[in-house]
Amino acid sequence: MNSGPARPRVGHIQFLNCLPLYWGLVHSGALLDLELTKDTPDRLAEALVAGDLDIGPISLVEYLRHADELVVLPDLAVGSDGPVLSVLLSTAVPLAEVRTVALGSTSRTSVLLARMLLEELHGLTPTYVTMPPDLPLMLREADAAVIIGDVALRETYEAERDGAAHPLGLIDLGAAWRDWSGLPMVFAVWAARRSFADQHPGVVKEVHDAFRAGLDLALGDVAAVAARAARFEVFDPATLARYFTTLDFSLGERQQAGIRAFAARAARRGDVPPLRTMTFAQV
Amino acid sequence: MNSGPARPRVGHIQFLNCLPLYWGLVHSGALLDLELTKDTPDRLAEALVAGDLDIGPISLVEYLRHADELVVLPDLAVGSDGPVLSVLLSTAVPLAEVRTVALGSTSRTSVLLARMLLEELHGLTPTYVTMPPDLPLMLREADAAVIIGDVALRETYEAERDGAAHPLGLIDLGAAWRDWSGLPMVFAVWAARRSFADQHPGVVKEVHDAFRAGLDLALGDVAAVAARAARFEVFDPATLARYFTTLDFSLGERQQAGIRAFAARAARRGDVPPLRTMTFAQV
Repeated sequence: MNSGPARPRVGHIQFLNCLPLYWGLVHSGALLDLELTKDTPDRLAEALVAGDLDIGPISLVEYLRHADELVVLPDLAVGSDGPVLSVLLSTAVPLAEVRTVALGSTSRTSVLLARMLLEELHGLTPTYVTMPPDLPLMLREADAAVIIGDVALRETYEAERDGAAHPLGLIDLGAAWRDWSGLPMVFAVWAARRSFADQHPGVVKEVHDAFRAGLDLALGDVAAVAARAARFEVFDPATLARYFTTLDFSLGERQQAGIRAFAARAARRGDVPPLRTMTFAQV
Repeated sequence: MNSGPARPRVGHIQFLNCLPLYWGLVHSGALLDLELTKDTPDRLAEALVAGDLDIGPISLVEYLRHADELVVLPDLAVGSDGPVLSVLLSTAVPLAEVRTVALGSTSRTSVLLARMLLEELHGLTPTYVTMPPDLPLMLREADAAVIIGDVALRETYEAERDGAAHPLGLIDLGAAWRDWSGLPMVFAVWAARRSFADQHPGVVKEVHDAFRAGLDLALGDVAAVAARAARFEVFDPATLARYFTTLDFSLGERQQAGIRAFAARAARRGDVPPLRTMTFAQV
């Protein structure tokens, strides 16, 4: 009998954009070595910051607010280098006439990105109202709405299908960010608590290896991931496959430059503290 | 785009005795088609009864209290046909001198089984006190303690290692039940809510098939399951392999007779309503 180490406490977001990672963890069997907690992004971020999780995904804005307590896992993120399909500003009036914007209450980074674009790029000064992410309700209260996730992905596909007949304007915020900054947008990274990484560098490396291997497995067989997921999602396999291959799961030089550009703008606005240095886990 | 069915909401107990099932669900990939909630047995039973889960494990006593609302999944249970290794009455005095018994607060079925044996088989009338499952603390307050799970498994192995030098008496409640009744003991079954099974018979069949296939996969490679689990458990691979092969995951005629015998005794004592009929899911 030995007193083996505890399984690392790892967070997982049960959103479509993280499904390839989960698929990979199941298929590689790596899930057996994790104590996985599934929850919403905001609650997982809270748990990571509070020390109830050791490693987990964290939205870019929350990371920037707690960068000193965290180390980033390399080569892993959720973002897009251009259109992201699932982060939108949906408009019921021409953009120049937008006076009120409804912000989805479950989003942090996307909401801040939308405000930057509206105010700094388009010179607008709308009034904002935060609401649950229900597009028809949002547009009953406001001229435009920031929506993310499955709701937004559906809106993207409906707008493509309808063409000019679609009743709403649509700005893909991933595409808008790249047009503005020339860089990819990173919506979330994976991070470990700095104290945990100091005490258990081998575990952080192992989890990172499992994540990367799982993701590579999934991205190498996107058709299978999409077919399996389509059984229980509102999207068909082709739609899912396109979404999974549109997302950018990498965190290379350009993505890091995107983070620094976003962080600098956000800090200038006073929304996050300045990002002094992004510390990576040693893996 | 279609409005696919939701993944079935399935409960899972993160105890060693359910680890082979989990290993099998990971290795077969079936986990991808489940919305799995991990929690303690008592909270999962509550969630199943409340309708927050569709399918899940439920301790025998809780099943007997809610049999009318549930259908049992065939060919699947956690029990033992003789010693179980992990459900014990641990005694600090000779059995005949036991006056006070500490009952672990996280157990229902094992506690009732211990009371039946003490009162009906041994003719004792001890005083009971319910406490958190910490053996030294329990035996500071009482002459004997009912313990389950990892704590009990460790006590079994320490007693075997120590032989006559072991300071505590130990009654394996699985073995004691079989000596008394001649039958296997079933500690928990898997059940679906009756209303869910009526509306989604195909889903219940599919989950049952996945459970049985996963369990068969795990029991066909117990050495691999044990080696993988030993990384993060306090037991070595040989100990885990013996435990997994000692457990009885079947629910055949003898196991069902064991349930009926236990249910009849429990109902006579007024601890559960009489079991009229055990309804099985159509799979």
